[in-house]
Amino acid sequence: MPNSFGKLFTISTWGESHGPAVGVVVDGCPPGLPLTAAEIQSELDRRRPGQSDIVTPRKEEDRVEILSGLFEGKTTGTPISLLVRNADQRPGAYDDMREKFRPSHADYTYQAKFGVRDHRGGGRSSARETIGRVAAGAIAKKILALAGGVETRAYVTQVHDIVVPAGALQAFPTLAEIDASPVRCPHPATAAAMVERIKAVRAEGDSVGGVIECRVRNLPPGLGEPVFDRLEADLGKAMLSLPATKGFEVGSGFAGTRLRGSEHNDAFVMRGGHVHTVTNRSGGVQGGISNGEELVFRIAFKPTATILRPQQTVDIHGAQTELAARGRHDPCVLPRAVPIVEAMTALVLLDHWLRQSAQNRTFKF
Amino acid sequence: MPNSFGKLFTISTWGESHGPAVGVVVDGCPPGLPLTAAEIQSELDRRRPGQSDIVTPRKEEDRVEILSGLFEGKTTGTPISLLVRNADQRPGAYDDMREKFRPSHADYTYQAKFGVRDHRGGGRSSARETIGRVAAGAIAKKILALAGGVETRAYVTQVHDIVVPAGALQAFPTLAEIDASPVRCPHPATAAAMVERIKAVRAEGDSVGGVIECRVRNLPPGLGEPVFDRLEADLGKAMLSLPATKGFEVGSGFAGTRLRGSEHNDAFVMRGGHVHTVTNRSGGVQGGISNGEELVFRIAFKPTATILRPQQTVDIHGAQTELAARGRHDPCVLPRAVPIVEAMTALVLLDHWLRQSAQNRTFKF
Amino acid sequence: MPNSFGKLFTISTWGESHGPAVGVVVDGCPPGLPLTAAEIQSELDRRRPGQSDIVTPRKEEDRVEILSGLFEGKTTGTPISLLVRNADQRPGAYDDMREKFRPSHADYTYQAKFGVRDHRGGGRSSARETIGRVAAGAIAKKILALAGGVETRAYVTQVHDIVVPAGALQAFPTLAEIDASPVRCPHPATAAAMVERIKAVRAEGDSVGGVIECRVRNLPPGLGEPVFDRLEADLGKAMLSLPATKGFEVGSGFAGTRLRGSEHNDAFVMRGGHVHTVTNRSGGVQGGISNGEELVFRIAFKPTATILRPQQTVDIHGAQTELAARGRHDPCVLPRAVPIVEAMTALVLLDHWLRQSAQNRTFKF
Amino acid sequence: MPNSFGKLFTISTWGESHGPAVGVVVDGCPPGLPLTAAEIQSELDRRRPGQSDIVTPRKEEDRVEILSGLFEGKTTGTPISLLVRNADQRPGAYDDMREKFRPSHADYTYQAKFGVRDHRGGGRSSARETIGRVAAGAIAKKILALAGGVETRAYVTQVHDIVVPAGALQAFPTLAEIDASPVRCPHPATAAAMVERIKAVRAEGDSVGGVIECRVRNLPPGLGEPVFDRLEADLGKAMLSLPATKGFEVGSGFAGTRLRGSEHNDAFVMRGGHVHTVTNRSGGVQGGISNGEELVFRIAFKPTATILRPQQTVDIHGAQTELAARGRHDPCVLPRAVPIVEAMTALVLLDHWLRQSAQNRTFKF
Repeated sequence: MPNSFGKLFTISTWGESHGPAVGVVVDGCPPGLPLTAAEIQSELDRRRPGQSDIVTPRKEEDRVEILSGLFEGKTTGTPISLLVRNADQRPGAYDDMREKFRPSHADYTYQAKFGVRDHRGGGRSSARETIGRVAAGAIAKKILALAGGVETRAYVTQVHDIVVPAGALQAFPTLAEIDASPVRCPHPATAAAMVERIKAVRAEGDSVGGVIECRVRNLPPGLGEPVFDRLEADLGKAMLSLPATKGFEVGSGFAGTRLRGSEHNDAFVMRGGHVHTVTNRSGGVQGGISNGEELVFRIAFKPTATILRPQQTVDIHGAQTELAARGRHDPCVLPRAVPIVEAMTALVLLDHWLRQSAQNRTFKF
Repeated sequence: MPNSFGKLFTISTWGESHGPAVGVVVDGCPPGLPLTAAEIQSELDRRRPGQSDIVTPRKEEDRVEILSGLFEGKTTGTPISLLVRNADQRPGAYDDMREKFRPSHADYTYQAKFGVRDHRGGGRSSARETIGRVAAGAIAKKILALAGGVETRAYVTQVHDIVVPAGALQAFPTLAEIDASPVRCPHPATAAAMVERIKAVRAEGDSVGGVIECRVRNLPPGLGEPVFDRLEADLGKAMLSLPATKGFEVGSGFAGTRLRGSEHNDAFVMRGGHVHTVTNRSGGVQGGISNGEELVFRIAFKPTATILRPQQTVDIHGAQTELAARGRHDPCVLPRAVPIVEAMTALVLLDHWLRQSAQNRTFKF
Repeated sequence: MPNSFGKLFTISTWGESHGPAVGVVVDGCPPGLPLTAAEIQSELDRRRPGQSDIVTPRKEEDRVEILSGLFEGKTTGTPISLLVRNADQRPGAYDDMREKFRPSHADYTYQAKFGVRDHRGGGRSSARETIGRVAAGAIAKKILALAGGVETRAYVTQVHDIVVPAGALQAFPTLAEIDASPVRCPHPATAAAMVERIKAVRAEGDSVGGVIECRVRNLPPGLGEPVFDRLEADLGKAMLSLPATKGFEVGSGFAGTRLRGSEHNDAFVMRGGHVHTVTNRSGGVQGGISNGEELVFRIAFKPTATILRPQQTVDIHGAQTELAARGRHDPCVLPRAVPIVEAMTALVLLDHWLRQSAQNRTFKF
Repeated sequence: MPNSFGKLFTISTWGESHGPAVGVVVDGCPPGLPLTAAEIQSELDRRRPGQSDIVTPRKEEDRVEILSGLFEGKTTGTPISLLVRNADQRPGAYDDMREKFRPSHADYTYQAKFGVRDHRGGGRSSARETIGRVAAGAIAKKILALAGGVETRAYVTQVHDIVVPAGALQAFPTLAEIDASPVRCPHPATAAAMVERIKAVRAEGDSVGGVIECRVRNLPPGLGEPVFDRLEADLGKAMLSLPATKGFEVGSGFAGTRLRGSEHNDAFVMRGGHVHTVTNRSGGVQGGISNGEELVFRIAFKPTATILRPQQTVDIHGAQTELAARGRHDPCVLPRAVPIVEAMTALVLLDHWLRQSAQNRTFKF
């Protein structure tokens, strides 16, 4: 089931960019959860097009409809089907892509794999597919918050070569701090520079990438299922399943490879009657299992593949050709990717919470 | 099934560092494959302890026994059970760890998760668990080689702050070039420096980490299952399920976030009658599907957590204590991790090959 | 994923009887299949309410809408989302069930399991859930027919104590013969008696059960995955997942237990250059794998639990009470269950075809 | 993973009849369970060959070895690997089967599916594969007993046409009553007749089949996961995955199809402060979920395919031939199948217990 994710809290997304609709089915949601469409909508609004002047102007309200799994305002433990109709379709705008492969897009590989593809707006490979993830993630976030006050916070730390200064984000950022800027970087000065950069490259018909950091607090120790379903392995898979991602690192990550063991190890200490670590180079996970510290990881996003410049390419007949430059797109995907990262994180954590509960808390001998 | 990996070619590993044995069951191996224990053994020999003077001196022959799934030298399509007895056990050497949590190890998190743990040599969290992965990976590698000449080559590109010079490894390295140095870096001058560094930190009772790069050639286009089981997502999960890993990146990775789209996109070109890209910043995968170019990715390994220095920690009773320094360990895990990375890569690729074959080649309408 | 079925051709159904809609997501459909909503609709029409005077008069058109996975009339290999809006809702008709458990229904067990339930029309436990199965099964049937002329035919052989005479159905029944009677028994005299019996018990406010037989021809040998995913095991699970089923048997079934081995064994014989069996007590499956003979199995359906007579029961407060008699229902579920059995059969067979293809036909050494 | 069973408590069996060994890996066992090899051995002893004069005289001690997952006598939550070496091998005894297909065995279908097969003693299709199931089931049974006093009891109710009289087994049979006769029927007079019948057909070189009934008491309500993983669906699959099974029915089963709804429905009643049913035609499961009544189901086993009479067959070259009569076998598989049925039942129930616990007990809103 390549379009499903999660073992016990499972989502199955469906839909193409220019088909009638996109959606998701959530299976395994615990019963009794109060839930409204408005709660899901507020997360979708953070990822929808047209929300600011640095994202794509495509006009989509992305109104979610709950089709099943709720009774008198509460979940029943049965599948929750969520639907969002596609609205602002201009399929004619994609005629040039019917036969030409856009560089660094999924056009050629979908054609090679399936022998057929819906070329309109990328079809299934479009980021519209993530609507289902965000909608399902909204439910997971609510459960995590109710269950243990778990908070998941993603934000942009790098756009192109503009980076938040080291040590500038010690405190756990608030949602208001993050959403204060359309670029979703909680460091105001850096955010302002990022916005300028995005506007500048857009003016040149170009695009930029960057890095999103995600932190989770109040996570209990014990989540993660060695040896293959380690917490960081499932988080890594979740993030690398997002369009445009090229890398994932947890805790000290790639930079940590330059430290010695004596510098890198996180010494244990008792604090408030609980085991804690003095430092957090582990990023909240040891041996594939959460250790109760803040979970910290980062994701690399490449520059948007769609650019408004002519590019060399080939067509489905094997002829060399040029791709004309046009269309509506995000010059930088990171601002809208922030809620998607949070959603995927919540989905992984809730799934592992349920798994941990089943295996390690059901029976006491 | 947290100890199983793969959908159609599935491995299930079992065993603890100081239990009677470790092993793996392989389910879904195609029938008719000629296979000998010697072929599996040669891969195990690349990861076994004591193979050089920069790895742990623990004495383990790691002899593999095939218990099922073979008939007259060929696979039958039934499960292949592989067994390796543990030999050089010195459980007394671990008495200090019975109650104390080793910093940046899995001791505390296993205790928190399961309420019990086999403290001897890390128990299940020991890297001995990867024996089963390497044994199963040997089978996958053979099938990939027979099926399409697919070659998987991993090697060390960084140890501590010693890095292979940019552009120095353009050609696909040979196995001989890689294994020429015990550190498994195919760039001789860099390899020599790495060996020196490892010996130096070992002499100080310390440890170092680094980066392994993996490349695959002759992979057909079409492997990878969007939207969640993208090829890079499953490779990322596979690598992040290995002990001591902190990061994964494919193609341009984190460095690619500093390029513009116009610099980063891989233009398409016809070459030899096939679609190719001029550059390979995508790392051989686009939209989650292989595009026929070389697959390229890198994994970050932290410095070994076991060091020969006293460390501050707590015990299972919540008392502050100190961990004495002793034991046999690898001052740098990367040389022995090279065959493990290759094994996991082959397992992911073969699994996706079977999935691609089932869905997209079974029926032609 | 308790609401998903199949490993490679996977369906995920969702929806409640009196919610806004019911539906299904199909993942793993091979690309390039020509498909129209009308083809799916024709299967749905065989299961919909109100189609004859021996089934429930509930008015539902059950119009299917294809929301994704198709492009220019062909499948693309991406998920196919199918939606059917619920129309004839009379939720007030179920007020009596809000607090009272209907005997031999799922009311009590859903309450015990989930702590909450949608009581309207049985909610998720309603047979309306099978709309998604039939819609997805229509796709599977078409692929099986195109791929190898595989035909799946289910029909009613017993209603109450009225049984098709032994040996009366040697030839493979045609669809026209089956649908000639509203009871879907291809033996006209028996069918007529069944219709009379159903009308008679309905007049008394009572209900009856019976047996459906299913046969499949042109199935190739080799389908089925021992040791757990045997073909008959997966067929059995599929059938026993249908509402109101109480038994499943393949080939000689329960009656075969009264034969000796020398009477029961199916001798092999060459016919037309292929291996065949003289008799077919195996029912087309040996060792869990299809042997190329006709697949034959039967399913027992209990009498409909909903009856128009007052019944003793308890309510959610633990008080003894009586359930009043009212509502629209099927006095015998078998006629409408015939297309559902065919759908589930096709889903199992296609899934196993894909699995067989992946493991045993991908590589030849 | 066709050789794995269960979602959260998963077993993976491996091994051939005449390979070096057979075994099983159990993943998902809760930690902290006291466990000894002797406890597993006692279940294996109930299924091993040579235990009485009505089963095969093959000499196998079937000694189990625990290779992992235990530490100081308790489970650790990591995989439990269990190994049984094959001892009494006479591969030469099977030379006749190398090229000839035994009627109603898996010889032909394995050849058709895999293109190769281990012909010695049936290879993977041998009932020796069930050793792993019984060993794993012993663990599941212990957990169920400790957790809630759940008792699983299977016994023989029919051999050939000898049937336990209706109503003779109202009380829940004790293990002693069942094992009092080698045929494992707790009704002494019937058991004696069964033993005579088995000896008689064996003397004629023939074989017989029959029916096993299984009952479970003290099962809580709420186990079972609609809509596909209904409790009876998973039990049915488990039983139909056993060699020689041809049918499965729960509660009233096939006989219930001859009742009217008004006769078949189980009225609810309060008893001891709990909801109960007056009758139990549902067999302890309603809507796919346990209702707290006794779970009751039956399995049909065909007569043993191996008989000591010459039989008509074909060989792998497509030539008509005759199969000579020889070998050691069970003239009736049911006595040894009793512990296997109990094992599979326990595995299904424990798996569903864990699933129910995860989804419906983890969070309370």
